[in-house]
Amino acid sequence: MSYPALEAHFGRIQRLDDAMSMLHWDLAAMMPRGGAEARTEQMAALSLIRHELATDARIGEWLAAENGGLDDWQAANRRTIERRFAHATALPATLVEALTRATAACEQTWREARGDNDFATLRPKLEAVVSLVREAAAAKADALGVGRYQALLDEYDPGTTVERIDGLFAELADWLPETIDRVLEAQAKKPAIITPKGPFATDAQKAVGKALMAAIGFDFDNGRLDVSHHPFCGGTPDDVRITTRYNEADFTSALMGVIHETGHALYERGLPADWRYQPVGRAAGMSAHESQSLLMEMQACRTRAFIEFAAPILRQHFAPEGGPAWTVDNLHRLYTHVERGLIRVDADEVTYPAHVILRYRLEKQLVAGTLEVADLPEAWRAGMIELVGIAPPDDKDGCMQDIHWVDGIFGYFPTYTLGAMTAAQLFAAARQGIDDLEGHIAKGDFGPLVGWLRENVHRWGARYTTDELLVKATGAPLSVDAFKAHIGRRYLGEEV
Amino acid sequence: MSYPALEAHFGRIQRLDDAMSMLHWDLAAMMPRGGAEARTEQMAALSLIRHELATDARIGEWLAAENGGLDDWQAANRRTIERRFAHATALPATLVEALTRATAACEQTWREARGDNDFATLRPKLEAVVSLVREAAAAKADALGVGRYQALLDEYDPGTTVERIDGLFAELADWLPETIDRVLEAQAKKPAIITPKGPFATDAQKAVGKALMAAIGFDFDNGRLDVSHHPFCGGTPDDVRITTRYNEADFTSALMGVIHETGHALYERGLPADWRYQPVGRAAGMSAHESQSLLMEMQACRTRAFIEFAAPILRQHFAPEGGPAWTVDNLHRLYTHVERGLIRVDADEVTYPAHVILRYRLEKQLVAGTLEVADLPEAWRAGMIELVGIAPPDDKDGCMQDIHWVDGIFGYFPTYTLGAMTAAQLFAAARQGIDDLEGHIAKGDFGPLVGWLRENVHRWGARYTTDELLVKATGAPLSVDAFKAHIGRRYLGEEV
Repeated sequence: MSYPALEAHFGRIQRLDDAMSMLHWDLAAMMPRGGAEARTEQMAALSLIRHELATDARIGEWLAAENGGLDDWQAANRRTIERRFAHATALPATLVEALTRATAACEQTWREARGDNDFATLRPKLEAVVSLVREAAAAKADALGVGRYQALLDEYDPGTTVERIDGLFAELADWLPETIDRVLEAQAKKPAIITPKGPFATDAQKAVGKALMAAIGFDFDNGRLDVSHHPFCGGTPDDVRITTRYNEADFTSALMGVIHETGHALYERGLPADWRYQPVGRAAGMSAHESQSLLMEMQACRTRAFIEFAAPILRQHFAPEGGPAWTVDNLHRLYTHVERGLIRVDADEVTYPAHVILRYRLEKQLVAGTLEVADLPEAWRAGMIELVGIAPPDDKDGCMQDIHWVDGIFGYFPTYTLGAMTAAQLFAAARQGIDDLEGHIAKGDFGPLVGWLRENVHRWGARYTTDELLVKATGAPLSVDAFKAHIGRRYLGEEV
Repeated sequence: MSYPALEAHFGRIQRLDDAMSMLHWDLAAMMPRGGAEARTEQMAALSLIRHELATDARIGEWLAAENGGLDDWQAANRRTIERRFAHATALPATLVEALTRATAACEQTWREARGDNDFATLRPKLEAVVSLVREAAAAKADALGVGRYQALLDEYDPGTTVERIDGLFAELADWLPETIDRVLEAQAKKPAIITPKGPFATDAQKAVGKALMAAIGFDFDNGRLDVSHHPFCGGTPDDVRITTRYNEADFTSALMGVIHETGHALYERGLPADWRYQPVGRAAGMSAHESQSLLMEMQACRTRAFIEFAAPILRQHFAPEGGPAWTVDNLHRLYTHVERGLIRVDADEVTYPAHVILRYRLEKQLVAGTLEVADLPEAWRAGMIELVGIAPPDDKDGCMQDIHWVDGIFGYFPTYTLGAMTAAQLFAAARQGIDDLEGHIAKGDFGPLVGWLRENVHRWGARYTTDELLVKATGAPLSVDAFKAHIGRRYLGEEV
């Protein structure tokens, strides 16, 4: 019976991961700039220790030994450990090191070249990264016995297959261009948005953010809200650190950012405490995680019901005198505005999938070797015209906008849209399962919704795949239906 | 040639120590209370990894191998490593674990029993700790080939011997009671202190603290000021995190606390960058460290010159209207007030050594077994009467006031007063070496003083013992003369 040894070993790794997560939060939210080099040294030392633990040959022996008599949780934990060990040992140390160097060099070049719209300078660095990623994908494919892109995807979203994504994204891509046209037409017939006039003091934005976080159910005894350049949810399940970024000219993005990260935070906080330091006790995957942030941000908090609750709080802090910009109608229009744009991170929920499908198609080809880095700018342009309906005037706001590929991250992009679809399907089920859910939301009472999510999603950790969770929670695996219905209802007034 | 292996190994340990130092800062300054258990898990996992690295048997082999041809820095580094390895391996794992348990239990009891003035409840827990500390002292004495108390002291202040401390403290103890009498007599003849009236807003106190830190030379690109219950200087040399605690009724202690920690921070920041991740690149010992905080707090920043510089800043933030409480004379009296008190951490620089000598005498006897925990309250009372001149009315403000013994820390107390004496001796040398030092301080120009300290103390790290540093910087090993002269000049108007 070697299973207890696996638990002890992975318990140690998880505590180390938690420590690194806190140090990463500090780096982003607290560290003075002069601390960067020292922090790199600390993280490198801990990463090396973690790597040694994660590739310890005894793990293979423990996994190979008899492991009968496990209960369901233990068996799921063992499967998760097996998967992690396969990923950790798939790449030779020389390749890991080459990737670390190549991505660091590429990111450094990208930070300069992006601003200069200089793809030619980025190109050789990105080619080096893509070449190594292809090598890594081949090695992981061998180790896991799956296709190359699948092997990369598996690290971020276990249980999701390329075939499933291909099918789902094909349906979306069929429906999306015409839908965007129709949404924009319908929007044009509505009253114009009155933009609230700033400046909006950081302290006031923070107070509003904290008030909404508290209403949604963020647990300030086990978490914090701070500021960082790129907002994120970090820390650990018992000490969740979310961040945002304030723009005094526009409160809307910081505020929805806070709600987005609060969705992530609630998931972390609701993970099964009995399995805190085991792989099975952590998130099911990146699309499950993103579904929790998008469920709050897109499904729950851009409803008219939520704006009814939030509007008085916004007025209290930003415009006690009121005015036409601060009506529920106008604020709701502001928060459901749709626009074709060049930049993924600024996209609304209707056009966002188009940005993701483009990246998914391109990164699959890059990994397969059917697209070369040199041809990326042109492929990007063509894809933007086809999927979003506009052409980027340059590479800066085209294929150079994201950090993912620069950092060697391939297989992550689809989880954004899988998360959005998962959120729609879960929220639809929650609306059916909870009496007058929108009535609760309109009063700022998130108890029923969060309780439903804890019961149906959070408390299961990684015991089930995201699709298995969906079957249990909604009666069906992931489909595009709920997402389409949501867009139709919110933007086209369609009944469901 | 096994020396490079030692450097690589201890470089790894130092990076791990740095990571733990950041996590400890977060725990004290940022962590929400619900994060405590998770942080304990993280720290325990890292501590165990650190212990495994620090006791790795290969260290003994590397040390035993030929290590000729080292330069002076490398040789000093090797000596420091040898000392650390002897300490790390001196105690059997069972004793380390027993100490961890006993001190944790004792601290928990102390937190309750202290408030209740209940020595009887604390006693058995403290007896358990003292018994294990005696065992540890015996084991370390064997391993290091020195006396038992010496073996404990050596961990905190390498190079300092019990014989030296005995001699220095005997001289101080002879001189102190009469000196305290004389200082209080002289003080009674001066105008009464006018206490500045609060409240003093936390933000204003913070602004003043930061202004003074900046003047002294704290490098905000490589450090931060935050709040914690017990002020400390943490972080790493390139990312120094100091903390303070604000009391809106009284700004004086937070302000001098900030200056004290700034002294520690400057030392950390000035340590030799070329040896950043090696034992020789870190502090020479605790008395050297305390000398740097006390040099700023006591020697430099309670001078009339500094109050001349600080008074307008204090008035600007606390009392723009001015008034008799805010004159340089009154503020200087406030910051040099002497009073016999029961509590060490509240003591002024004149009476502080009496508190330390008492603890030093008692802890030596506790370790030697010539004093038992049961007799501690009475011995404390007798010592307070003899050394400070007052008797504690209870144990709460008597032998139960400090956490050190409760936590198994024996051999640390003398470094406070060794630090104060070292500070006096260094400052006297700096005054001789720098043209018109007090003139610079009166203008808030700390450049010459900090430059002198960097040159004579900080940049040497642990290459020399504190006494060797003093010989180089001041021409003589540590003596009581400079401290006595300082007290005489500041409090008795004696010329030197």
